[in-house]
Amino acid sequence: MSVYGSIFRVSTFGESHGIGVGCIVDGVPPGLKLTEEDVQPQLTRRRPGQSSLTTQRQEGDVVSILSGTENGVTLGTPVAMIVRNQDQRKFDYANTSSIPRPGHADYTYQVKYGIKASSGGGRASARETIGRVAAGGIAEKWLREQYGTSIVTWVSAVGHVRLPEDVAKRLETTPPTRDEIDSSGALLQLEDGRFVDVYGNVYEGSSGEPTGEKQGRQMPEDCAKVKETKIHTRCPHAPSAAIMAARIQQLRAAGDSTGGILTTVVRGCPVGLGEPCFDKVEAELAKAMMSLPATKGFEVGTGFEGVKMTGSQHNDLFAGKDADSSLLYTRTNNAGGTLGGITSGQDIVFRVAIKPVSSISLEQETASFDGVVEKLVVKGRHDPCVLSRASPLVESMTAIVLCDLAMRQRARVGPTPLQSLQSNSHR
Amino acid sequence: MSVYGSIFRVSTFGESHGIGVGCIVDGVPPGLKLTEEDVQPQLTRRRPGQSSLTTQRQEGDVVSILSGTENGVTLGTPVAMIVRNQDQRKFDYANTSSIPRPGHADYTYQVKYGIKASSGGGRASARETIGRVAAGGIAEKWLREQYGTSIVTWVSAVGHVRLPEDVAKRLETTPPTRDEIDSSGALLQLEDGRFVDVYGNVYEGSSGEPTGEKQGRQMPEDCAKVKETKIHTRCPHAPSAAIMAARIQQLRAAGDSTGGILTTVVRGCPVGLGEPCFDKVEAELAKAMMSLPATKGFEVGTGFEGVKMTGSQHNDLFAGKDADSSLLYTRTNNAGGTLGGITSGQDIVFRVAIKPVSSISLEQETASFDGVVEKLVVKGRHDPCVLSRASPLVESMTAIVLCDLAMRQRARVGPTPLQSLQSNSHR
Amino acid sequence: MSVYGSIFRVSTFGESHGIGVGCIVDGVPPGLKLTEEDVQPQLTRRRPGQSSLTTQRQEGDVVSILSGTENGVTLGTPVAMIVRNQDQRKFDYANTSSIPRPGHADYTYQVKYGIKASSGGGRASARETIGRVAAGGIAEKWLREQYGTSIVTWVSAVGHVRLPEDVAKRLETTPPTRDEIDSSGALLQLEDGRFVDVYGNVYEGSSGEPTGEKQGRQMPEDCAKVKETKIHTRCPHAPSAAIMAARIQQLRAAGDSTGGILTTVVRGCPVGLGEPCFDKVEAELAKAMMSLPATKGFEVGTGFEGVKMTGSQHNDLFAGKDADSSLLYTRTNNAGGTLGGITSGQDIVFRVAIKPVSSISLEQETASFDGVVEKLVVKGRHDPCVLSRASPLVESMTAIVLCDLAMRQRARVGPTPLQSLQSNSHR
Amino acid sequence: MSVYGSIFRVSTFGESHGIGVGCIVDGVPPGLKLTEEDVQPQLTRRRPGQSSLTTQRQEGDVVSILSGTENGVTLGTPVAMIVRNQDQRKFDYANTSSIPRPGHADYTYQVKYGIKASSGGGRASARETIGRVAAGGIAEKWLREQYGTSIVTWVSAVGHVRLPEDVAKRLETTPPTRDEIDSSGALLQLEDGRFVDVYGNVYEGSSGEPTGEKQGRQMPEDCAKVKETKIHTRCPHAPSAAIMAARIQQLRAAGDSTGGILTTVVRGCPVGLGEPCFDKVEAELAKAMMSLPATKGFEVGTGFEGVKMTGSQHNDLFAGKDADSSLLYTRTNNAGGTLGGITSGQDIVFRVAIKPVSSISLEQETASFDGVVEKLVVKGRHDPCVLSRASPLVESMTAIVLCDLAMRQRARVGPTPLQSLQSNSHR
Repeated sequence: MSVYGSIFRVSTFGESHGIGVGCIVDGVPPGLKLTEEDVQPQLTRRRPGQSSLTTQRQEGDVVSILSGTENGVTLGTPVAMIVRNQDQRKFDYANTSSIPRPGHADYTYQVKYGIKASSGGGRASARETIGRVAAGGIAEKWLREQYGTSIVTWVSAVGHVRLPEDVAKRLETTPPTRDEIDSSGALLQLEDGRFVDVYGNVYEGSSGEPTGEKQGRQMPEDCAKVKETKIHTRCPHAPSAAIMAARIQQLRAAGDSTGGILTTVVRGCPVGLGEPCFDKVEAELAKAMMSLPATKGFEVGTGFEGVKMTGSQHNDLFAGKDADSSLLYTRTNNAGGTLGGITSGQDIVFRVAIKPVSSISLEQETASFDGVVEKLVVKGRHDPCVLSRASPLVESMTAIVLCDLAMRQRARVGPTPLQSLQSNSHR
Repeated sequence: MSVYGSIFRVSTFGESHGIGVGCIVDGVPPGLKLTEEDVQPQLTRRRPGQSSLTTQRQEGDVVSILSGTENGVTLGTPVAMIVRNQDQRKFDYANTSSIPRPGHADYTYQVKYGIKASSGGGRASARETIGRVAAGGIAEKWLREQYGTSIVTWVSAVGHVRLPEDVAKRLETTPPTRDEIDSSGALLQLEDGRFVDVYGNVYEGSSGEPTGEKQGRQMPEDCAKVKETKIHTRCPHAPSAAIMAARIQQLRAAGDSTGGILTTVVRGCPVGLGEPCFDKVEAELAKAMMSLPATKGFEVGTGFEGVKMTGSQHNDLFAGKDADSSLLYTRTNNAGGTLGGITSGQDIVFRVAIKPVSSISLEQETASFDGVVEKLVVKGRHDPCVLSRASPLVESMTAIVLCDLAMRQRARVGPTPLQSLQSNSHR
Repeated sequence: MSVYGSIFRVSTFGESHGIGVGCIVDGVPPGLKLTEEDVQPQLTRRRPGQSSLTTQRQEGDVVSILSGTENGVTLGTPVAMIVRNQDQRKFDYANTSSIPRPGHADYTYQVKYGIKASSGGGRASARETIGRVAAGGIAEKWLREQYGTSIVTWVSAVGHVRLPEDVAKRLETTPPTRDEIDSSGALLQLEDGRFVDVYGNVYEGSSGEPTGEKQGRQMPEDCAKVKETKIHTRCPHAPSAAIMAARIQQLRAAGDSTGGILTTVVRGCPVGLGEPCFDKVEAELAKAMMSLPATKGFEVGTGFEGVKMTGSQHNDLFAGKDADSSLLYTRTNNAGGTLGGITSGQDIVFRVAIKPVSSISLEQETASFDGVVEKLVVKGRHDPCVLSRASPLVESMTAIVLCDLAMRQRARVGPTPLQSLQSNSHR
Repeated sequence: MSVYGSIFRVSTFGESHGIGVGCIVDGVPPGLKLTEEDVQPQLTRRRPGQSSLTTQRQEGDVVSILSGTENGVTLGTPVAMIVRNQDQRKFDYANTSSIPRPGHADYTYQVKYGIKASSGGGRASARETIGRVAAGGIAEKWLREQYGTSIVTWVSAVGHVRLPEDVAKRLETTPPTRDEIDSSGALLQLEDGRFVDVYGNVYEGSSGEPTGEKQGRQMPEDCAKVKETKIHTRCPHAPSAAIMAARIQQLRAAGDSTGGILTTVVRGCPVGLGEPCFDKVEAELAKAMMSLPATKGFEVGTGFEGVKMTGSQHNDLFAGKDADSSLLYTRTNNAGGTLGGITSGQDIVFRVAIKPVSSISLEQETASFDGVVEKLVVKGRHDPCVLSRASPLVESMTAIVLCDLAMRQRARVGPTPLQSLQSNSHR
């Protein structure tokens, strides 16, 4: 279904090569200041063409609010938003009409519906997520204003390249801001193949080793030595980012692609969110994440690795009471912020696995709809890695889930304000 | 919420130490033969006390159908079912009233609801899943009769002990039946600590090494050398099962616990199930699994490991057309049976991570509701590992999800029968 | 579907001649004092056999709470309740197996489901409403405690007998309490056919004319002159009640039946309830009422008669501001308490039309399932009029609707308490 | 909520004076031929300015399909549609900012949301229904193609003017087509005040008496004697239509308004639609109708009048089996096409009461939001009667309800086609 949520309810529409994509958000609280300015930033962050690491499709992705606000304030009525498609190039996908692209939804849409969009992914395209990101902008603003909640997602793995364990742990405990992710994860590449972070530090692309060398911080992007600019990895650890960037460039050259892992931390989430037994907070987050294109796994807290621990290692012991909120706190957070499906006040920490991009330039031997094996070359511009662009999708769906659960809890609690742990000083 | 599903809709009720637990299943198709005999087997499989590896609580867990059938046939009206609680022992949990148990939902229920059941997990107890398993029995029977769908779940990891990679792969490609899982994964233990499988093969518990020795197949369970009988690991690879069993016994002796991983394969699922964009089949399965107690992760197909592959490795190439069903097939199944959120006809393969059991006998230093750190010993009988008992839960929720999605697809398709790939001969 | 509500969610189950009927109520706020004592009274009021005007089936209809409470307080978890069937007498309906009863659901259940309960109405029986009345008891208590809301329903018409217009108007403006309805509407009948109200006033049954005669108020029910006792009409106007009672007795003697109209007034409902555009308060009430058995019409405020008015007559002019609540009030209430689908603070006033009872003792010439016209005599004990028993059904569904809408509004409003007009002194 | 439906799911958006109004329709079956041509006709029928009896606002109300189709065929993905607002004139309503208009939702939106649209009805405006009518166009086409279902609504009462009983009965038994309603109910008015129908028959406006006089059928609309053209009453009985037209003109001159009753007949609806117990077909229809602006009552079959009948009069006796469909039929249809909440194959017959239009030109003494009684004159162009324009709204909501229920029944039935009675020859 194209509708998500019980109270804060998002309906999306639109195919990749149609007139546009968008959403209706029902249940937006009235009196919230809201203009396109609130929604555009995350749309811009998910936009293709930001970086030399992603596709060069230059889509403006400019959002328009069609209803639900007046003079920049929400009315409590449905907020409809639309982003018009600009750059359609239907012909690029033309040869896919008789051969379903491997790894894509061409085949399953055809068997499910008996028909499919003739160009591109149609509804299965990542463009579908624009409506979600737009809706997420509203949810996120409301959560931040009501509860001081912040949500950040960064790239923690690309292919075999993973954040060093201690770095991964430190980031999960003390998450960077979105700005820090965008700046620390942004690199320039020199002509010699090495990468430069925003502080001017130079790294080898092969190993991520810092060279110790330092380029000027305000390095002109058009200087002679620069080969590629604005490489948005969204991995907030420059040495790792350098290896990731090198790996992605290598795959692009080869016409191939990679997957990766995104890590998300939510801080300042109200306690008590999540509706046992079916709509547990981790269940709703899992559904939301697995409803995004190309996701193959979800884990919260220690996740799959945590099964190796013993109960005595894994249990987060309560360590005392927070003075401000009168909430209990723990010093460890193996649970990832949820107990029994209900937010505990600890940071929500989860990871999402993204499969290698299915659109590759390499020739593939695969069967047509008629069952005849043929050679397929999928034309068009492909991202060899979508991890950096996927982070706003994860942030947006997280906001939508938590916003809906917060409202459901308010329905029960009524006049009692929800509380959240705002500081992390207990750890 | 305690309701799951759009068309096939399950509502559950009941606390662990109340009168009973159960469910109402709305949307059950009429004319299905249904008696308690259809529902009881999975309830019996999830029952505690089956094995020396699990808690000794002896609960009958006998289900009664209260409505929705007449003369053993469903009427199309809601099927209500109840399992009465027998063995309550409220006192065992008495000292948890002032101290929330670490890793449990005591604390979050208290902050969410301002009140919690005074004994045991209440609604957060694993007993809550009885209603789901009962409902799953109906879903599973319907799927089997309508589409020949089979669902099996086995234990693929306990703590650090994992199935060898080739065994894991082989099982996912050629899944065992439920009977095979129950028999291959059932061991006896000799007084010398070694384990014997149903074929009489003897294994070391420390290494899983087959000794080459063979005990009589019909070994009398009361023979002198037998120390423990009926060890239901539900790991269908006896050497691994032996190590798992040894590890669990070690932890039980230490008053500690472990987690693990369950692997599920669905064969013969109709193609075309899953409702883009939010209710993708993997999204609904993820939600369903993460709504089960103690689950911390979900992955489909290659999951988290698959992110290391390249697109050209990961894409499942279409290899031809199945003669019986006219459906396309692939020789690999990295996707795990879903493309774009819609079932492709390939087997659905997913894994669920279960955290180490939070109920341990070891003393824990943890804060009371008042914030004072105290020593807590949780009395009662605890499972050091719930993996084997959790498999019917996973199977049941899988059936419920697929049953609901199949009905949603039928709503669209109407008179056209859904199809499924019944054989795996293409691989 | 057998589920109603978004936040306060009621699932019902049970056939008339099965083991029992009941419900699961999900979303019950925690901390509410709740025992069977809270739920039983309305079940007792809907019970058959209370009056000589209704069927003599003596069913205890004793409710048991199975979950969701501890020590008489709700836990916030699902409250399951059951009423066991006692008096089944399957044989009475035996001859309906080949001939669908006219006016009943026998035929449509058969065509919809391909099967139907072999005895009685099955799920289409009025016994199905027991689950709703039980759930309504919870909703009603919560609304009363949180907002001082009261809901009363009385009989305003039986067949051609209607309350005099001025009496109807006065009752809608100044509604009686439920106790007053039960007492004013309860009559004794003397052997001469005349009726006596609880104040000892005597009325002619044919015309409702008060005779001026007065019998002792504490008239012994077993005194010689009394022919029938405890005639519960639930029409709070004794002269009209007397004519209704006489008419019902006449129809019972003839083996025939009648319908009627129920009027409901809700006072002290919070303002702001109702979710435009589809879930307007009158839309949800209409659905709820039309989901009750035998209902054929719903109207709010002036309803069908009001279409004859002009806009200038019909518009309720705002007359000032209530000092206590700071809410605006009107002196007229043609709208019946709703503007634009949202409660205005004025009393909610609506009426429900109940068709003549379909179960009659008269022989009917009607076709069998095979299409052959035969003579049908439906055996069993039939109510010639169900109006008095239907009032708790209407009250319960009203409570369920308003409780759910109040919670939905709280989800939006959060910390701001909802308000209601408590006094009617402005009119 | 702004979402209706379980499978065929409609979300609407838009305020009366914003950018536009529209909807997303999720669950549209794939492969349906669909262009704006299918949707526009009913939008045109609901458009203001069609007739001298309705407001002169000239809005094009031209619909655009934004998604969900390709080459004029539905893809099974969400169909989004938008109608842009053209004629906004915000100033006309300017003085309503401090005084809530009586009978309107200004006050309740303000108390519910704490804010309201500054101009016009915002979301409570009848323009909101455009999204529903657009969605209804899809539902109606699908029902017609799949099941031959037809839905017609006509005006059966305006103020005190009602169709003669025998005419009303005849029309309900043998309903006119939509074209017949539009033509028979369209009048010209001569300068002497008399009305002429499309056949040239002349009627007195005061009494509806046919004069026996006959004007030329192709009367030029600009001929000297014609005072008003294109009076669309949508009452398919010219004598009644003439009285209605005269009455509406009288009220417009007086600055006042009237209400009325709409009658709907659905023929060829599949049997077996309606989901007991809460989502009975009449319950869903009642909700849908009562969710339309200005509706105050709903009744099905004999409705409120039917309560005066006895059971033996009211029961529709089964009279035999239809040869084509093998369904039972009845000769009477007091039930209005539903038994136990499930369609029986008989025509669905229901009526909707519409209150007098709240927007009147007469001065009203009413309180401001501050509680001060002031004189209010609502400027702008008002319809004195909206009955004729409301008929496409009723038809559209009916189609949406039945389409969703048909899909829900298909989910259960699967491969068995639903059946319907196509002819009315049994009566």
